[in-house]
Amino acid sequence: MSAAVLGGMASQGAVAQAEPLPSWNAGPVKQSIVDFVDRVTKEGGADFVPPDRRIATFDNDGTLWAEQPIYFQVAFAIDQVKALAPGHPEWKDKQPFKGIIEGDIKAVMASGEKGVLEIMAATHTGMTTEEFTKTVTDWIATARHPRFDKAYTDLVYKPMLELLGFLRSKGFKTFIVSGGGIEFMRPWTEKTYGIPPEQVVGSSGVVKFEMGPDGKPVLMKEAKVEFIDDGPGKPVGINRFIGRRPIFAFGNSDGDQQMLEWTAAEEGPRFMGLVHHTDAEREWAYDRQSHIGKLDKALDEAQSKGWTVVDMKRDWGRVFAFEP
Amino acid sequence: MSAAVLGGMASQGAVAQAEPLPSWNAGPVKQSIVDFVDRVTKEGGADFVPPDRRIATFDNDGTLWAEQPIYFQVAFAIDQVKALAPGHPEWKDKQPFKGIIEGDIKAVMASGEKGVLEIMAATHTGMTTEEFTKTVTDWIATARHPRFDKAYTDLVYKPMLELLGFLRSKGFKTFIVSGGGIEFMRPWTEKTYGIPPEQVVGSSGVVKFEMGPDGKPVLMKEAKVEFIDDGPGKPVGINRFIGRRPIFAFGNSDGDQQMLEWTAAEEGPRFMGLVHHTDAEREWAYDRQSHIGKLDKALDEAQSKGWTVVDMKRDWGRVFAFEP
Repeated sequence: MSAAVLGGMASQGAVAQAEPLPSWNAGPVKQSIVDFVDRVTKEGGADFVPPDRRIATFDNDGTLWAEQPIYFQVAFAIDQVKALAPGHPEWKDKQPFKGIIEGDIKAVMASGEKGVLEIMAATHTGMTTEEFTKTVTDWIATARHPRFDKAYTDLVYKPMLELLGFLRSKGFKTFIVSGGGIEFMRPWTEKTYGIPPEQVVGSSGVVKFEMGPDGKPVLMKEAKVEFIDDGPGKPVGINRFIGRRPIFAFGNSDGDQQMLEWTAAEEGPRFMGLVHHTDAEREWAYDRQSHIGKLDKALDEAQSKGWTVVDMKRDWGRVFAFEP
Repeated sequence: MSAAVLGGMASQGAVAQAEPLPSWNAGPVKQSIVDFVDRVTKEGGADFVPPDRRIATFDNDGTLWAEQPIYFQVAFAIDQVKALAPGHPEWKDKQPFKGIIEGDIKAVMASGEKGVLEIMAATHTGMTTEEFTKTVTDWIATARHPRFDKAYTDLVYKPMLELLGFLRSKGFKTFIVSGGGIEFMRPWTEKTYGIPPEQVVGSSGVVKFEMGPDGKPVLMKEAKVEFIDDGPGKPVGINRFIGRRPIFAFGNSDGDQQMLEWTAAEEGPRFMGLVHHTDAEREWAYDRQSHIGKLDKALDEAQSKGWTVVDMKRDWGRVFAFEP
């Protein structure tokens, strides 16, 4: 190989390195991310952060993957009710199950929070952790999103996948900190995001250690909420599971506000980011009035404090990997 | 450098690699560890386990460091009561605080579990997580063990430090799964064991997100037990924090029995180990009758199931690094 060819390869390498985050459009938002990472990883620099302190936390629903028209975990629960219905003839006359079986969403909605808890109890509890994991694994491999007719894991945001990889390549340890169920996420986050189960923080129900009928121990999922990893619960979850404060945090809704506040409050360089859903064509547009992923107070705080707000339409050249 | 010298160095290197765990005496116990690690790391072998599944969990008190004459966290709490006493004149007339101040251990013991909870509440709650971390950090840097007159972190077992390092060098991810307080351990486990905060599982109290007086958020430690990571709680803690089952687990007491059962119950190669305290000279000798670190049912189960039982006196050539 000639020196010229080698030189050409080297400069290609340099270009590749100089252009991280290819699905992000050039502009102040992309620049704020790259600049922050440069600053905290520059050895000898004033803002250098040693690798073991490079903790990055990401909300999941609406931040790493889509959350419309309903949270994907709710779609899972609905599909599970339908799958379990033959074994529960009594559901035909009992809301909210009746509504799900008959496709009567109004009736389901009318059952309110009590109805949601009944659905969650019926689909997420009364089984072992291993049985639940298998159910989630089967569903995620086969279910299709109603608008895009794609697997739900195809609805992850390409720019955020690039960001996760970019941060890890710079010595960051990436965590999910989500209001979603911890056991709903863990079966697929490693394959989808490169985030292993032990780096997933989420809401949870009580599980109980029991001896199974074959003399082997099992963990039974009980119909009792243990922890809600949302809003003020996010700093609590970060403290409990990670035990260190993130220096980089990304969310998309008011449920992430306290995580960003907690990240911002410690001395030293910090990055706080929000995904603002502004693209009804490629994804969805919603914020202050939305029932899902409401972004109102956190948007005000981000604007007043100069946190980074991603305008999806403006800042993302591509939203999903499957786009042409 | 001559080829002979290079050859000599290479064979030294080979010897060093062939002799891991230098503080472990040769014998079936050491062999069982080395054989297991060889089996699960041999690519193409029948028992090969990919690196992301190489989860190893260790109890802390009595497994990684000593726990006599009292759990070190209790020694911390007692020292804290003494340090806080000037601000609490009412403690002079109130058990169990009176007993601690006056060195009347019988009176402290007489206060029973209620007394212990009062001591824990007074020394572990009513402050922010950051204040508590500072208190632990200061104590661990200065307190001395009564028998050895050494820092408590000098009472870690050298053979277990070697084992942690050996496992990590073979692609294992090492976790602590302890009945001790998670926030008591995290400030020093990384420096002492090479185990970062996010790989420490332990008992916890409720913490609450609040806005501090300066407008900065804090996490307040409340006087409410959240989770006891002991006995059947250990598999629950492993499931919650790690989300995968260990293939290698080490404990020393009946409080570790369910962790070992949980580890053993899954298909595939598994290692279950217990430290049996048999060396009153270099450390302590205790098992079935002990009030601290009672080892009775788990010892029976280990013997009947062929788990590895370390006889400290026989199997450890050196217990503490400070031994001559």
